[in-house]
Amino acid sequence: MKYSREQLIEIVSGQMPEKRWKHTLGVMQTAVELAEKYGADPVKADLAAILHDVAKYWPVEQMKAVIEESSESNKELLQHDKQLWHSEAGFIVARKDYGVEDDEVLNAIRWHTSGRENMSLLDKVVCLADYIEPGRDFPGVNKIRELAQHSLEEALVAGFDSTISLLLTQRKVIYPLTVLSRNYLVQQLKIQSHGGL
Amino acid sequence: MKYSREQLIEIVSGQMPEKRWKHTLGVMQTAVELAEKYGADPVKADLAAILHDVAKYWPVEQMKAVIEESSESNKELLQHDKQLWHSEAGFIVARKDYGVEDDEVLNAIRWHTSGRENMSLLDKVVCLADYIEPGRDFPGVNKIRELAQHSLEEALVAGFDSTISLLLTQRKVIYPLTVLSRNYLVQQLKIQSHGGL
Repeated sequence: MKYSREQLIEIVSGQMPEKRWKHTLGVMQTAVELAEKYGADPVKADLAAILHDVAKYWPVEQMKAVIEESSESNKELLQHDKQLWHSEAGFIVARKDYGVEDDEVLNAIRWHTSGRENMSLLDKVVCLADYIEPGRDFPGVNKIRELAQHSLEEALVAGFDSTISLLLTQRKVIYPLTVLSRNYLVQQLKIQSHGGL
Repeated sequence: MKYSREQLIEIVSGQMPEKRWKHTLGVMQTAVELAEKYGADPVKADLAAILHDVAKYWPVEQMKAVIEESSESNKELLQHDKQLWHSEAGFIVARKDYGVEDDEVLNAIRWHTSGRENMSLLDKVVCLADYIEPGRDFPGVNKIRELAQHSLEEALVAGFDSTISLLLTQRKVIYPLTVLSRNYLVQQLKIQSHGGL
């Protein structure tokens, strides 16, 4: 690693308001707990959580520039809501500027907002921690916290469902990958409940 | 046309239970009303409505065979819920067996369940009629009927939203095209409200 954990915390926390850093501390705590509970690597969960929102408060133009300049970024994302850009920008700078080389960690940062089809265990842990860290307060969050006690997938479906329902209510565009991520988990759970996995 | 309107009605009504034919009569009536109100061709609306559910009560294997054998069908649909197959099968037999040559009518049959991005006026009329014909009774249908008094697009967004919400509640897979259709309409309405169209 290019930086120690303490240096990374210093660098990342300096790029967001105190309130968002408090959220990040919550995601770190919850991601480590979920990792320990479900058999993911807690050190990787902690690192992905530290970095997941690094670009969240960047000016939009800076996020855009980072995504446009990267050879491995998904440029099509720029056609979608700006709220989605910080995950992709965070994924890019985590490697380029902060020396993260572990693909599991990089992917967990990249997919923490939308999810993706066939999410890895670490993707699930970080994405769910982002929904349920102690500072979160939205309708249904306690139900998702309860589900997280016995199933990562059940809790994530409930998390994605809450996002999709909110976008319906607000009459906002739904990012198609969020629906695909949710559909994949629903099918995964159906197969599991039939004893197929 | 290969058959008269009366012959088509005879042929189609014989392929479904009486209750479903009553639904089709409702869609015919509503589609013609919507066509007259919004400037679509009522004769085309009537024809598409007559045929829209022709394959709805076919055995699943028959729908599958028709979709597999056609050179222009979307085979990928067979990976999705069987509820979606009847629209594609109806589209194929409308041309092949019943002599419909008008692409507007054929498309309105094909996309009446999922919608599609950039729906035609006739697509919208038939799809919305299917949601709100007088025999329909589901939570929110009266709200959609009210919206249909002043905007096809507003009413259709509400229709797709009700479908997506129901699938979330029932924990079923959401067909991605339904989300894309709804997103497209939401964006179309946003542009209109900013005076851009």
